[in-house]
Amino acid sequence: MVARKAVERQTGVALWRQIADRVRLAISNGDYDATGMVPPETALAREFGVNRHTVRSALAALAEEGLVRAVQGRGTLIERKGRVTYPISRRTRFSAGLGGQVKEIGSQLLAHREVQASSEVAAALALPPGAVVVELQTVSSGDGRPLSATIAYFPAGRFPEMAQRYVRLGSVTKAFAAQGLDDYVRVSTEIVARHADAEELKLLKLSAGAIVIEALSVNADVEGRPVEYSRTRFAADRMKFRIET
Amino acid sequence: MVARKAVERQTGVALWRQIADRVRLAISNGDYDATGMVPPETALAREFGVNRHTVRSALAALAEEGLVRAVQGRGTLIERKGRVTYPISRRTRFSAGLGGQVKEIGSQLLAHREVQASSEVAAALALPPGAVVVELQTVSSGDGRPLSATIAYFPAGRFPEMAQRYVRLGSVTKAFAAQGLDDYVRVSTEIVARHADAEELKLLKLSAGAIVIEALSVNADVEGRPVEYSRTRFAADRMKFRIET
Repeated sequence: MVARKAVERQTGVALWRQIADRVRLAISNGDYDATGMVPPETALAREFGVNRHTVRSALAALAEEGLVRAVQGRGTLIERKGRVTYPISRRTRFSAGLGGQVKEIGSQLLAHREVQASSEVAAALALPPGAVVVELQTVSSGDGRPLSATIAYFPAGRFPEMAQRYVRLGSVTKAFAAQGLDDYVRVSTEIVARHADAEELKLLKLSAGAIVIEALSVNADVEGRPVEYSRTRFAADRMKFRIET
Repeated sequence: MVARKAVERQTGVALWRQIADRVRLAISNGDYDATGMVPPETALAREFGVNRHTVRSALAALAEEGLVRAVQGRGTLIERKGRVTYPISRRTRFSAGLGGQVKEIGSQLLAHREVQASSEVAAALALPPGAVVVELQTVSSGDGRPLSATIAYFPAGRFPEMAQRYVRLGSVTKAFAAQGLDDYVRVSTEIVARHADAEELKLLKLSAGAIVIEALSVNADVEGRPVEYSRTRFAADRMKFRIET
């Protein structure tokens, strides 16, 4: 049998990682839905034109991501279908957006502080240079799998209790509401995709070489005053974005 | 001097590629704007904790992408700032969206045919199963640099001359207008990021291991009838997306 889509050598990306990417995509596309299993190692080795050891490394990486699980004597079971759909719209809300797709949404506050806004943050929040902002570093997960790592800034004058409320309520939307802001809208979102850096690999529990989608977003109250500027790194392998214009 | 942000070994991504990614990001962020040059090889080698040979491979990859150019006796000049901003809104238009950011927009028709719609294409275009659609394969570029590769489908009954018009006019919007459709809107966009496959590396002239952002989009006329379903692979390193909700 001729290799259907052999991987490329000498590319700067290890063969096992290329194969892990291909199998992850096939899982996400539903190619293996009929059996709920990844094809046998020998079949994958033939398909990609590599030896079984390389296939085994690829499947080990996917197992580490929680996507598959090796079962003695049966083969490699698919544990998750892969991507969570995240809607981006004028009314983007993290928790509500994932509604129904995951059983449990986790929100962890890693660090918080009050800090003078950088020129970038001040401009995004329409604050005077040097104004004080609350900075939150958070990681959000779905069913225990990290989906995004965020650094968010809020005007400290208006939302002095952002950190405390977030810890108690587990959501920016609820923390806003507890401080008198009942409604807000997405003003702008900028997106790039790139390879994850070492810190992101750790925060998002990604295997090396993985991709993050980085979104810079501004939210404002209904009068148009900015209330939040954030930089979110999504684990690209775990997400699909639906843009509602 | 301690390495500021050493690259990671044993990650499945070659050191030169990790460094190429970092330098590309720094260029795109404007970190080197003061000089218009990439720091000397010795400085980069120290910064990343690698030898000069590895740095040279990274800069060669960036030169191949057209991002930098080595000048004998001077160093490595930055040729382009990197990312073109692509707006996604209800009125997304490829050419107009890039307006002012590139001098010349190139549109190349690689292949076209009439084909029975797959179930996915038929559903997206709200056509009965097996309806005939026009399929266009195109590559678009800015100032000679490929930005996106697209496979687009159009109802053949309504737009029988899509290929001929596109070749002559160089734009889907103009090809629509020439067939009586003066206005259309973006109905939905779905986005994922992943590593480019071998065909995409070639079409987009990417260096191996590069990332593509894949967008599945539906456009409809003002009465809501779908007129186009497309799958576009953007060269992620060259693009930033601005979502206007």
